[in-house]
Amino acid sequence: MTNLFNSKLSVINVGVSDFAEPIISYNAKVINVDWKPPGNDEKVARALSLLVNSPEVEEANHKSFQRYLDSQPTLVGVKPASKVIECMNEKTIMHSGPPITWEKMCSPMKGAIIGACIFEEWEKDHKSAEKALESGAINLVPCHHNGAVGPMAGIISPSMPVWIVDDPIHNSTYFCNLNEGLGKVLRFGANDSEVINRLHWMKEILGPALGKSLEKLEPLKLKPLMAQALHMGDEVHNRNVAASGLLLKRFTAAALDADIKSTIISELVDFISNNDHFFLNLSMSACKAMMDAAHGVPGSSIVTAMARNGTDFGIRVSGLGDNWYKSPAPVINGLFFPGYDSTDANPDLGDSSITETAGVGAFAMAASPAIVQFVGGSAADSIKNTKLMSHITHGHNDAFTIPQMDFSATPACIDVRKVVDTSIMPIINTGIAHRKAGIGQIGAGITKAPADCFSQAVIALAKTFSE
Amino acid sequence: MTNLFNSKLSVINVGVSDFAEPIISYNAKVINVDWKPPGNDEKVARALSLLVNSPEVEEANHKSFQRYLDSQPTLVGVKPASKVIECMNEKTIMHSGPPITWEKMCSPMKGAIIGACIFEEWEKDHKSAEKALESGAINLVPCHHNGAVGPMAGIISPSMPVWIVDDPIHNSTYFCNLNEGLGKVLRFGANDSEVINRLHWMKEILGPALGKSLEKLEPLKLKPLMAQALHMGDEVHNRNVAASGLLLKRFTAAALDADIKSTIISELVDFISNNDHFFLNLSMSACKAMMDAAHGVPGSSIVTAMARNGTDFGIRVSGLGDNWYKSPAPVINGLFFPGYDSTDANPDLGDSSITETAGVGAFAMAASPAIVQFVGGSAADSIKNTKLMSHITHGHNDAFTIPQMDFSATPACIDVRKVVDTSIMPIINTGIAHRKAGIGQIGAGITKAPADCFSQAVIALAKTFSE
Repeated sequence: MTNLFNSKLSVINVGVSDFAEPIISYNAKVINVDWKPPGNDEKVARALSLLVNSPEVEEANHKSFQRYLDSQPTLVGVKPASKVIECMNEKTIMHSGPPITWEKMCSPMKGAIIGACIFEEWEKDHKSAEKALESGAINLVPCHHNGAVGPMAGIISPSMPVWIVDDPIHNSTYFCNLNEGLGKVLRFGANDSEVINRLHWMKEILGPALGKSLEKLEPLKLKPLMAQALHMGDEVHNRNVAASGLLLKRFTAAALDADIKSTIISELVDFISNNDHFFLNLSMSACKAMMDAAHGVPGSSIVTAMARNGTDFGIRVSGLGDNWYKSPAPVINGLFFPGYDSTDANPDLGDSSITETAGVGAFAMAASPAIVQFVGGSAADSIKNTKLMSHITHGHNDAFTIPQMDFSATPACIDVRKVVDTSIMPIINTGIAHRKAGIGQIGAGITKAPADCFSQAVIALAKTFSE
Repeated sequence: MTNLFNSKLSVINVGVSDFAEPIISYNAKVINVDWKPPGNDEKVARALSLLVNSPEVEEANHKSFQRYLDSQPTLVGVKPASKVIECMNEKTIMHSGPPITWEKMCSPMKGAIIGACIFEEWEKDHKSAEKALESGAINLVPCHHNGAVGPMAGIISPSMPVWIVDDPIHNSTYFCNLNEGLGKVLRFGANDSEVINRLHWMKEILGPALGKSLEKLEPLKLKPLMAQALHMGDEVHNRNVAASGLLLKRFTAAALDADIKSTIISELVDFISNNDHFFLNLSMSACKAMMDAAHGVPGSSIVTAMARNGTDFGIRVSGLGDNWYKSPAPVINGLFFPGYDSTDANPDLGDSSITETAGVGAFAMAASPAIVQFVGGSAADSIKNTKLMSHITHGHNDAFTIPQMDFSATPACIDVRKVVDTSIMPIINTGIAHRKAGIGQIGAGITKAPADCFSQAVIALAKTFSE
């Protein structure tokens, strides 16, 4: 003891950093370790202790994970939303993220919905559209509640063409709108005539041409295509350049085979060639199919959706039915285009985090070192991120391998228990929208899911066992 | 000293391993370091000492390297070889590698040349073709002597369509044949009717369609396209899947714009879509342009060509004119397709090692971790290989960056002095042909250039200073 008091102290302080201050004041060296007890509050800790090492949860998770692995999302068609999605028969618009009222919606989502009302010719101008929306004359429902997903504002209205993705293994069907490209586009809240005209072209020309082409193709299994893109530097969330190219190859061959005018094929090829994000909406549909397959297993703590509406960040959990567990959507501190910074940024937006939920996107970031140019970080970070995520997933998906990690499988299926227990939050590669409608994308970055919604889910899941 | 004699010895033995034997016989631990004095023999060592630290060589290499960096290979057309390559006016066939007589050619090269004679309708059958070739009635010249390159046997005959690649900076033009795909193809020595029929289709349909499409495209700069492919997991020698896709995008759009029948566009799209190596021949033309730009600087020790004819492995050096320095072509110990092993393998073959000469291929292997599936090794090896090559190059090429190494530039322009000084041999990713004509590719692997030709070049370059 005398020895200890006489020697120069080097102290490691774990947890509450205030404890270190008196030691520092006596000139000792202190390293602070930022640590919190799992769950962060007593109620959560108690719920977590009920679920950790529970054989019931383990068994449910295995079942859920196996369904995820078994699913075989397959592109089968392109049709107007109204022909294939039940809720689209009425004056209804679908949006991204958890349910939200018109009043609480962020500005880019409002702008996009106004644009959709004008595109559908339900309203003549912005003012009358806003009035109709305020009055509740138009139904606003989440994509996720209707087997669909949409990037950013995620707006799908009845006349819009949608990708149709079947999962023949689980006998279910999923949908996503078509990608409009970058710049001034509806999904970022833009709604001027340029945007509306493009939507009309997509409805009248692109959608039907893709549909006709698809009739000449064998049903297209999407997982092998995504896997190939991972070997070509995509992570199929914010980098889709390889996947879009692979898709275009198939479509060009099919379009030339189908009864389509060559000027239209030309337009189709130009549009897809110049949009390196074109595949994103198919990647999202495939991920939605995989995660819905994993959904609905009683007792399972696997996250089956992470989605943002620009106001809330919400998750769904396999064993917790249709409930959403929500936190305020975070603002992303990413790489901003010249002239913008985080004060211009809208909080996190879009259903595209379904890709991370399904084990690609930021979870497969090691496959995509080039994406650091877009979202920030180094090549080593991209490998670190993928490795980190394996601490909070149930397993790995052999269908998606990473050359940079000697073809090891991507970590997949987030377990809410592990998130709360480790305080490692799921990471998401995401685009950043301007908080005002119509300006569009102003940057991209890596964000973390907020912690609170996972804690809520742990409490709710524990309740299902005590009921 | 007494201490030393009484303690247990651990010895590191550098160089001649025989020196370690007596020590081992006394039960001491010995680690042998495989080291040889640079140059390996006195004559080479003396020549090397003349060149190392020579300001004249340094200056010449800088000039040569700058020309390499400045070159801007640009795809401008596709035409029959006879219309654009002077030597193709006569009964002449071009082949890969250094010059070689008919007698000394390997079997796949002979098979390919016989095929070309039949394709050109100079001879009716194999027998008469062989006779004509033995009699010397048909000229056989290296591609490299005529501004051209060709993969594997590298056969170009007058009617074959060739890529035309201009370097407007150095006012020069380069050529390569079109890629036939994998399997039973002329470049591996196959010459049956399936092969000849495909060559006719390429001459009559593919070549003209590509040529017409190109008229609708801006002259296509190849370095940016190669750079983009490096960001998508290609090394543009043995992996060209991304580059071929990027090229197809441009050609499809252009073909639809040109006056080409849609059935022909369909054939073109199918052919290129199903040949992930299609871009290789353009990558090679671009590399030939870059290296010929660097060639012909007196005193420069930069390697401007590495090429194999299946019998000899030859190099050319910027300061050594048109001479070739040759070693026997090595047999590659790679990954063999089922049913084959190294006893079936033809020695190394083809001009495609021009890609490594120009700093891509195996030199950019870190960009292409997925290629280890094809050539062997691990992801870590691919980074190690790229780093290792920077010990023997003059510099790095900022036009080609590697996401996996945080966008560092590829090592480029091999310096013969450094190869001899370090005994680090240039590595090459290569396909392996069966030693019998007509069987085709039986594997792929990573090979090293043989040492002796570099030593010869060092001696020859030293002579140019003492003359």
